[in-house]
Order: sequence, then structure tokens, then C-alpha cells
Amino acid sequence: MVSKNYYDVTQWGVGDPFNDIGEVINSILLDIKERQNEIDENDGGKPGAVIYIPPGDYHLKTQIVIDISFLKIMGSGHGFTSSSIRYNVPEDEWSHLHELWPGGSRILVDLAGSPKEEADGAAFYIYRSGDPRISSVEFSNFCIDGLHFVDDDSDETNPENTYTNGKTGIYAASANDSFRITEMGFVYLEHGIISYHADALTIHDNFIAECGSCIELRGWGQASKVTDNLIGAGFKGYSIYAENFGGLLVTANNIFPRGASSIHLEGVTRSLISNNRLHAFYPGMVILDKNSTENSVSSNHFLHDHEPWAPLQGRNNGLDDTFGLLSINGNSNTVIGNHFSEIIDKDQILPRGATPVIIHVVAGNGNYISNNHIVATKAELTSSDSCFASQVEALLTNDATEALEVKTVMIEKQSVGNTVLDSGSEAQVELDKESNAFRATPIPVKYSMSN
Amino acid sequence: MVSKNYYDVTQWGVGDPFNDIGEVINSILLDIKERQNEIDENDGGKPGAVIYIPPGDYHLKTQIVIDISFLKIMGSGHGFTSSSIRYNVPEDEWSHLHELWPGGSRILVDLAGSPKEEADGAAFYIYRSGDPRISSVEFSNFCIDGLHFVDDDSDETNPENTYTNGKTGIYAASANDSFRITEMGFVYLEHGIISYHADALTIHDNFIAECGSCIELRGWGQASKVTDNLIGAGFKGYSIYAENFGGLLVTANNIFPRGASSIHLEGVTRSLISNNRLHAFYPGMVILDKNSTENSVSSNHFLHDHEPWAPLQGRNNGLDDTFGLLSINGNSNTVIGNHFSEIIDKDQILPRGATPVIIHVVAGNGNYISNNHIVATKAELTSSDSCFASQVEALLTNDATEALEVKTVMIEKQSVGNTVLDSGSEAQVELDKESNAFRATPIPVKYSMSN
Amino acid sequence: MVSKNYYDVTQWGVGDPFNDIGEVINSILLDIKERQNEIDENDGGKPGAVIYIPPGDYHLKTQIVIDISFLKIMGSGHGFTSSSIRYNVPEDEWSHLHELWPGGSRILVDLAGSPKEEADGAAFYIYRSGDPRISSVEFSNFCIDGLHFVDDDSDETNPENTYTNGKTGIYAASANDSFRITEMGFVYLEHGIISYHADALTIHDNFIAECGSCIELRGWGQASKVTDNLIGAGFKGYSIYAENFGGLLVTANNIFPRGASSIHLEGVTRSLISNNRLHAFYPGMVILDKNSTENSVSSNHFLHDHEPWAPLQGRNNGLDDTFGLLSINGNSNTVIGNHFSEIIDKDQILPRGATPVIIHVVAGNGNYISNNHIVATKAELTSSDSCFASQVEALLTNDATEALEVKTVMIEKQSVGNTVLDSGSEAQVELDKESNAFRATPIPVKYSMSN
Repeated sequence: MVSKNYYDVTQWGVGDPFNDIGEVINSILLDIKERQNEIDENDGGKPGAVIYIPPGDYHLKTQIVIDISFLKIMGSGHGFTSSSIRYNVPEDEWSHLHELWPGGSRILVDLAGSPKEEADGAAFYIYRSGDPRISSVEFSNFCIDGLHFVDDDSDETNPENTYTNGKTGIYAASANDSFRITEMGFVYLEHGIISYHADALTIHDNFIAECGSCIELRGWGQASKVTDNLIGAGFKGYSIYAENFGGLLVTANNIFPRGASSIHLEGVTRSLISNNRLHAFYPGMVILDKNSTENSVSSNHFLHDHEPWAPLQGRNNGLDDTFGLLSINGNSNTVIGNHFSEIIDKDQILPRGATPVIIHVVAGNGNYISNNHIVATKAELTSSDSCFASQVEALLTNDATEALEVKTVMIEKQSVGNTVLDSGSEAQVELDKESNAFRATPIPVKYSMSN
Repeated sequence: MVSKNYYDVTQWGVGDPFNDIGEVINSILLDIKERQNEIDENDGGKPGAVIYIPPGDYHLKTQIVIDISFLKIMGSGHGFTSSSIRYNVPEDEWSHLHELWPGGSRILVDLAGSPKEEADGAAFYIYRSGDPRISSVEFSNFCIDGLHFVDDDSDETNPENTYTNGKTGIYAASANDSFRITEMGFVYLEHGIISYHADALTIHDNFIAECGSCIELRGWGQASKVTDNLIGAGFKGYSIYAENFGGLLVTANNIFPRGASSIHLEGVTRSLISNNRLHAFYPGMVILDKNSTENSVSSNHFLHDHEPWAPLQGRNNGLDDTFGLLSINGNSNTVIGNHFSEIIDKDQILPRGATPVIIHVVAGNGNYISNNHIVATKAELTSSDSCFASQVEALLTNDATEALEVKTVMIEKQSVGNTVLDSGSEAQVELDKESNAFRATPIPVKYSMSN
Repeated sequence: MVSKNYYDVTQWGVGDPFNDIGEVINSILLDIKERQNEIDENDGGKPGAVIYIPPGDYHLKTQIVIDISFLKIMGSGHGFTSSSIRYNVPEDEWSHLHELWPGGSRILVDLAGSPKEEADGAAFYIYRSGDPRISSVEFSNFCIDGLHFVDDDSDETNPENTYTNGKTGIYAASANDSFRITEMGFVYLEHGIISYHADALTIHDNFIAECGSCIELRGWGQASKVTDNLIGAGFKGYSIYAENFGGLLVTANNIFPRGASSIHLEGVTRSLISNNRLHAFYPGMVILDKNSTENSVSSNHFLHDHEPWAPLQGRNNGLDDTFGLLSINGNSNTVIGNHFSEIIDKDQILPRGATPVIIHVVAGNGNYISNNHIVATKAELTSSDSCFASQVEALLTNDATEALEVKTVMIEKQSVGNTVLDSGSEAQVELDKESNAFRATPIPVKYSMSN
């Protein structure tokens, strides 16, 4: 093509990209590395290359293994469409459908058999030992499609609803720096993105949905951003998970159902979770666990209501409504200016008869919880066969305005030095007032129910 | 080109893209559809294609009609420049100008005559009936230029200032999923983007200005994002409009004048409007109307001042200064942590002698309005022939610090159960204190005027 | 190539892009301008062009001078890797390293000698006089590498740690409109981006680090956005600087050390600094100076701790810990909902024995400071030879929880009409309570230390 460092998978001499794009890209990577052996002495380096995937259906039968920096892999189309809806349409109606599959620059992950190791099921596997850490690998604007979920010995009658297939889209196994994942589509993978030991990672403006889990930042990491994505995991997984991370910025995401959690942090410190729109069908939407400290959760919009779509009703994440929509186990966190809407059927509350909890400090000192607005209303559980229609219906009939009694904030015993301001009335907030500071949201004289 | 699914409008055999890019792209679409009729049985689908528009001037005389999923149309340049400024420069000075028109990958919308139906005036018209909804159409980094506004029988002496020409940039008429509109430029269109029934729509990082209205999300929709755009509608239109939407995220936009409203929502629920910088020349900057409920408006910066540019002075949106910069008709919304700057000439207040209102609950219960900072100062209306110079001048001389008396919050009668905290002094907030909760912002002992 | 307006630097007939990409691009610009002399009379303009830089190492020996609108320069790889870490690895270990230099579409700024004028050291210099202002120049997804810092007569023993070389990546010298800088990498430049008189500028989703200063918006400007970037300046410079700006939106950035300041504003008005994650090794993280007014600083996360990396310990920005992490000289600003973590060694506080200040109103009236959460703990200064390891270690051992005494808010005398709510206890806030309004954060009865 135009430059030795520009590759088009449909123009490469080795392999057939439509049959196995893995073989083709691995061959290209070999070529890049061979050509990099001679280093320009005048500050010249190993600039890497770009690999272009035009729109098309590309089966991947061989895992792509990346161990060079400065590699960009890009397509021209994120190609998302809902496979979940289609798999829950009776098959005899499929012939009426305009199309059955995702598209764009689409990689069909056809890795054979069930992988023994999680990493074996990854379409893109990134690993390099030694120094420096692998840097500046970029993925942009193509689609990674896991195709099918499989029977996982659970109670699922439709195996396509299990969110299980052992497949991962992008798997960074070793410490990495300044990676970018942007404008991508991920669908029907058990894991969308797994990254160990990320530094200065950008996950921006992607569509990651109908995956078991969407984004998992494991091991530890720092100074990264997960911004402006559309995300929605399966009912068993995480939409966003991070552990032992410092300085993570999670903002401007629209995270829709049905993840077991929307954002789950373990041992995460000094990070900012702000300005996200979060919608979930179960409690435990945002979890700060394992001594997550000095984080800020601010200006987010939380909505918890019931699954309206018949094929996926009845699932849950095992958590009671007393767990909290936001649950905190850790110290010195900040929770300011969030809106919470809790719209549930009184008869569906678990445990039966319990009072749902919105913000729950399970354990932790010095947390500052201020100026959160909690709206809780009763709604009847309904059911629809049409995923889209039912959700829209829910929108248009949201006039259920009978207030539901909730604990807006609950601070468990042994937790001291927390501050709760203007986040609920005297009746709505439960805490030890001697060990924690509290100012109730004022209530109007004539209006006994405080929203 | 490199792949059958990659098209360059300048390389296609049918039509002349410079004379009518509509004919060319419609012919390409036909080719894509013909080639998609044979479906790969091994999970293969209809992956779609990408159409590339290199930089250049492309007249569009035939409407482009899109009814396939997984289509990306992309250019290399958003090409915005101000046509409004140029049209208000005397024509005898035009020969001194470096350039007269927008550029980049530029589509000149030359659809003939005035359209009878609004949809007929669209450069890109998207419609598909049946299932599934059309998915993953992407528009990226080109310019749609409506060229001229026309005499609309209003009082405008310069027809180029009417914001009327019946033209729309992108018009999605049927339910759509996972569309993307990014890095585009829209200019001199009566409507920039119209989308009916959008799900998981991304409108991100565009430049949409000098259009009658910029973004209109009509019908209903859900789980979408309008993020990180530069936007500024004409004085009659909306910068952002949405109706019957759930789960809309509007964040990180810089919305400048002169829209009749910056953000106008009707029947919108559980959405998040946060973190935007908003500047307008009229009241009614953000409107939550028709029972918009459980939305959050937080961490935004509002600026309302006077139009400084002579050619467009004297227009308005018909709203009095008592309308509110933020007006709410609906229940259980959240308004936290916003900054408002109201900088107006006392002699220009409408109705004359009235006290301007900043946050106005026209009707609604259970709204939570907390910790908003309102700054109101008097300024003399000035006028400049130079659009840019005048605005900069306004910046550099903003030392008008004489306080202007305003109602920071007004809750109309019959509204109950609202909460107003720390958003104005006793004198600045007007509400029924028996039916609503109120805590005044404290005032210093020695400083009688509370900002 | 595919269109006359698409150029590939490796395919152009004049010059050798690997030896001097400056000569090549200047020659391309000349060609574009020559071809634009004939204007299409039917609303046709000067649409500009795109110049593509494939991945590779391109020396730049001649400054690129841009004076046309509608120009896009794009690569396929931001190419960042840390040069700072490598320059502080002993040279005899370099042969063990996988790579020594940044990569991607990489421009090696080889401008000879020390520039006499700052502008002479710019790789890309943009200037046009007359009307209209130059518009829609776009830079996307390539790397500008300044290669080396030089001995600057300071005490630095390693010249590569001086952050001095007189080089600038992109320098816009005249008024400009609707520019875009996205997905770029900037490294080892004394100045990453300098723009004078910017209007509707987009600086989005870049990686700008290990530069003396990263983003400098000079002169004046308006209605621009600096969003979703990874940024980290050198210890002497600014991560983000703006002067005399109105309507600037700085949001969703992850700004890491070690800038002398993270965000420094002078004479900036009606701008929004929200939702950023900020980490710095010195006080003075965010500075609103020279009568910066009516700005909002909200929902940010501030972390100030000590430099853990041995090669750069001992530097500072000359500011005492009483300066404030957020310092304000101006009126009517808003500071709401921020989290501050101050983690410092008591023995390192300057001046010795002083009480550190977090939010500091040096001068100004009518500022509104509300619901900020300040966490201050003692930590022992440690040191590590490994940049990355030490930072991770700091994350994993953040159990230093002994509280540090601080002034959470200090309002200097002569400042009146400020409001401080719920941002610290009686003991933590220092202000003239007669001239300013104050409400202390409540303290629990049994827990004397308020976090």
C-alpha cells in the first residue's frame, strides 16, 4: 500500500483473512518485527505500523498475539446490532429479518473448543515481558463478535442467554502503557476487554454490550480513563470492574442493563466516578469494595427498576434490596450530587417486607455523603415479549408516583466519622448519630413525605 | 479500492460526485445491497461498507436514502467556518476575504425548490420498516453545508439571517439503534440532525452551528448520548431538543448562542444534563417541559447576557426574563451544583421593571434544588459590527459588578414537596414555605447583598 | 492517490519525508494553494485537503507553515512512550530495552540550533492575517517528539530532565476558529500546544505528557473545549494554561504529575472546570489568578502527594504548602463538590511547621465554596529508582491514615461576601465571619477529628 507500515488485511500475501484473520495478522506482525531489526542511529526507533480491516466478515480461528508497541489496528465500522434480541425471536421468524448478525469491520471469534485457560479464548492477546512496558497499542472502529453463548449447566433454557462462551475480545496480560481502545464494538463475548496492569489507558467512545463482562481492569493500574462509552454487561457480569487502581477516571458513560453491577471497584483509591448515567435491574449498581478509599462518586444518575423483557426476567445478581444501589466498604470517599431513582414493585422486594437501601456504607470511616436526591416510587412488575417495545412502554407510562419507603442512607455500626448531609430525612437515614455527623434534608411543614 | 466494501465517491463508475454526490452514493448503496444477497451460512452476515468522501466540494442534488445497517460514511475534514459572519460583511468586501465558504469534505446541499415535506429537504434520509431496527450507521468527519437561508416573510432584512431553508443534514425517520455521528460539521441547515426513535445513539465531538436547530431527538428514544460537541443554533431553534426520551446523557458540550433554547426537553425522564457550558442571549436556556421527571441537571455553567453583534441584535425568543434561565415543568428532578451568570441591562428587562428569575419551577412536585450559585450583575447593552471583536471585548471588560436583583429560585403555587437548599437568600427565593422545604444560603453579617 | 485533495507524505514527488517531512508538507501546501486559485462560482470554495502520515519515523528539519483553512493532517498512531523513564535508566541497560523511542506516525523535531524566537522552534506554525480567521485546521493521531531536552544552566545533572529545548509541537500565532487537535501524542517538547486567540477550539482525547508545558491558550479566546485528554507537564510548566478566555470547558481530563500547576487561569471568565482527575506533587494545582471571575470548579478529584521517583525528587514549583491546592484571585467563582486528598510528610511541609491550606481565596468577593470534601493524611516521603514500581507501591500501601491538620478553606482579609458551606469544620476554615458567610461541616459528637 502507500507505505511499508500500512497493511490491509485483504491485501496481504499470507493466508485468507475471511477464513482466518488471525493467521493473516500474525503474519503481518512477523513482517513488522523483521523490518524493525535495523535501528536508525539518529534517534530513529521502531515506529510500528497500522493494520486496516475494511468492512467485511472475518473469521478468527487463530489467536492474534501482540508483543510490539506502536501498533494500530483499525476498521471502518463498530458494527453493533443486538444479537440478544434476535436469539430470543423464534427461529421461524428469522427469515423475515433484514439481517441476523452484527456487521461493520467484523471479526467472528471462531476459536475452537472451550479454552482451558481464560487467556486462550482471547481474540487479541497482548503480552510482553521485560522493559519497557508495551506501549501505544490502539484498537479502533471494528467489531469483535463472539457469535454464540453456550450451555453452561445453569438453568438457562436458551443457551444464547447464558453469557458464557470463554471468549474475550482484547486481553492485555502484561503491564501496558498508553493503550487506546476507541470507537469499537464488542458483542457476545464472555469478556469484552481484560487489561492487567494498565497505565494511562484510554477506553473511549466504544459500544460494549451483550457481553458477560465488558471492561475488567485487573491486577493494578493507574491514571487511566473509561469515558464516553455505551456499555451494558450480562446479568452475571461487570459493566466496569477495576481492582487496586489509583487515579481512574470513569465519566460520561451511559451504562445500561443488565450487568450484575454497573461499576465494581475493589481496593481502588483516589479515583473519580462522575457524570455517568447508570441503569440497572438489580441492586449493587456501584460497589466500592475491599477498602476502596478517597474516591469520589459525584453527579451521576442512577436508575434501578425491573427487567421488563420476558426472556430475561427472573435473573438476578443474588443481592437483596437492602444491599444498596451504591455500596461502600472503605474510607474517606465522597458521594455528592447524585440522583437516584428506585422504581420497584413492593411485592418483589427481597427479603420480603424489607426496606430497600439506596446508599449503604457497609464499613468505613470518614466518608462524606452530601446532597444526594433519592426518588423512590412503587411500580408494578410487567412483562413484554418485545425488548424494545417494553422499554419504551416503560418510559411512556412512568406515572407511577406512589412513594416507596426506603432508607436513603444506611451506615452500618462500627463505622465512624462519616458525614451525611441533605441526603434524606430523619426517618430515611439510619446511622449512629454519635459516631457520625448528620444533617437531615429539611421537610416542608405541610408535606409529610420527603422525596 | 482495497476491498469491495470500501468505496471512494471519486472512484465510483456511476455519476459525477462533484455534480451530484447523491446520485453517486445512492448507486453505491445499490451495489452494496446487491452484493449482500448471498449470506454466508457460517454465521456470516451483511457486514455493510464504508464510503469515503475525500476533501472537496460535492454538490448534492439527489437525496441520499439509506436503508441498510453497518454503513459508514466518512470524510477528512469537518470544514466549519462561519457563513453567518461572512453574510453580514458587505459584499464589496468579499473580494478581500481569504475564503467565502466552509470546506473540508463538504457536501453542498443543492436540493431544488422548497420541500413540501420536511423529510424531502434532508441530504441524508434514513428509513427502514420491519425488524430489526436499522443499526450502526456512522457519519464521520465531513461537512454538510446548507449554503443559504432564504426569505421567510419575517422581518429579516437579510435573508441569510432567517435560519430558514427547509434543509436538514441527517434525518433518521424510523427507529434506529447504535448510530454514530462524530467529528462532523453542520452549517446553514434549518435542521442539523433529526432522529426519530433513537436507541443507543452517539452524537459526539461534532461542530453543529449556524443551523436553525442543531439536534432534534423526536418521537421517543432511550439510552443515548450527546457529548462533547460544539453547538449553537439560530435564534429561532433548539441547540438540543428531545422528547419522550429516557436515559439521555447530555454532557461535556459547549453550547454557545444563539439558540432560542440551549436544551429543550419535553416528556423526558431519568436523564442526565451535566457538566455542560451553556451561553445564551435569551431566557429559557434549559427547559424541562411536559412533565419531564426524575432528570438531573448538575454541574453546568449557565451564562445569559445580551447579543453584542449588531446584525443579530433585536431578535429574541419571545420569552420574558421572568421565564427563568432554567425552567421546570415536571416532578422529582434534581438541580445541584450549577453556576448561573446573569449579565443584563436593567433597561432591557422584559416585562419592564420585572425581577428576572433564574431557576423557575413552573409546575412540579418533589424537585430537589440545591447548592446552585447565582451571580447577577448589571451591564449596559452594547453593539458592535464585528461579531468576533465584540465578543472578545465583552470578555475583556467584564468588570460590571453592580449587582442585579433577581429571584434565584421561584416555585409557582400548587407545586408542593420541592426542596430548595443553599440556592439563594430569603429575599431571593420565592416559594410557599409550608408546602416546600427551604434553607436559605447564609448571608454574612456585614455584607447585605448575597451573590 | 484517490483524490487530488488526499496527499500521502510518502507518495509526494518533492523531498524525502523521512529526511525532512517539513520540506514535503510545505511543498504539498503550496500545491493545495495553487490548485485553489480558481473558485467554483456555484457556491464552490476552497475545500482544503488532507495530508496523511503513515506510521514511520519522519525527521522534521524545516518548520511547517500553515496559512490555509480546511487542512487535516493525520497519522495512524499517537506513538507515546515514556522517554523520561528511559533517559533515567543507565545507558548500559539500554541494549536490554525492547525499544528506545516513541513511535507511531512520529515526527522527530530536528529543528537546528536554539531558536531565537519561541515561534521558530515550532514544528507546525500557523499564521494568517486578514479575514476571515483561519478555520478548521485539524491534527489527528500522530506523534510529535521533541527528542531531547538540553542543559539549561539549572542544577539538573541530567540534561534530559530539564524540560527545556525551545521546541513547540503546534503553534497557532493568529486568531483561529474551529481547529481540532485529537488523538495526538506529544512528548519531550518544551511546549506541546500554544494557541493564541482561539475560538471554538477542540483539544480532545490526546496524550500530552513529558512536555515542559502541555497546553497554553494565550492572548484571549472563547467557547473552546479541552476534554478527555491524558496530560502531564514537567515540573516547571503548565499542564493547562489559559488567559483572558471566556467560555472555556475543561472537563474529563486525567491530568497527572508533574506540572508546576495542573490548570492555571489568568483573567479567565465564565468557564467550567469540572469533572477532571488531577494529581500533582506540588501545591498550586489549580490557580484562578488575575481576577478570574464567575468560573465554576466542580466535581473534580484533586490528589496532592509527594514525588516517589528518585530521579525527579527534590524539584518543586517554589510554592509553599500554604498556597493552597486550589488558589483563587477573583470574584464570584463557584467551587462545589470537589474531593481533595492531601497526603504529605509532616516533615516536608513548607514553611516548616505551617498548616497546609487546601482552598485558598487570596483575594476576591462573592465566591461560593460549598460541599467540598477534604481528606488530609500523613505519609512518609519515600523514594524509588523505578518510576512505575514506586507509584504502584504507593497505591498498594495507602494505609497511612493518621490525620494531618490542614486549613480546608482560607479566605484572606479584605475579601468579602464569600460563602463557605460544608467544606470544613470551625477549626478548619479560616475567614472573617462578619464579612463572609460560613456554615461548618457538622462534626459527630464522639468523633473529634472531622475528615
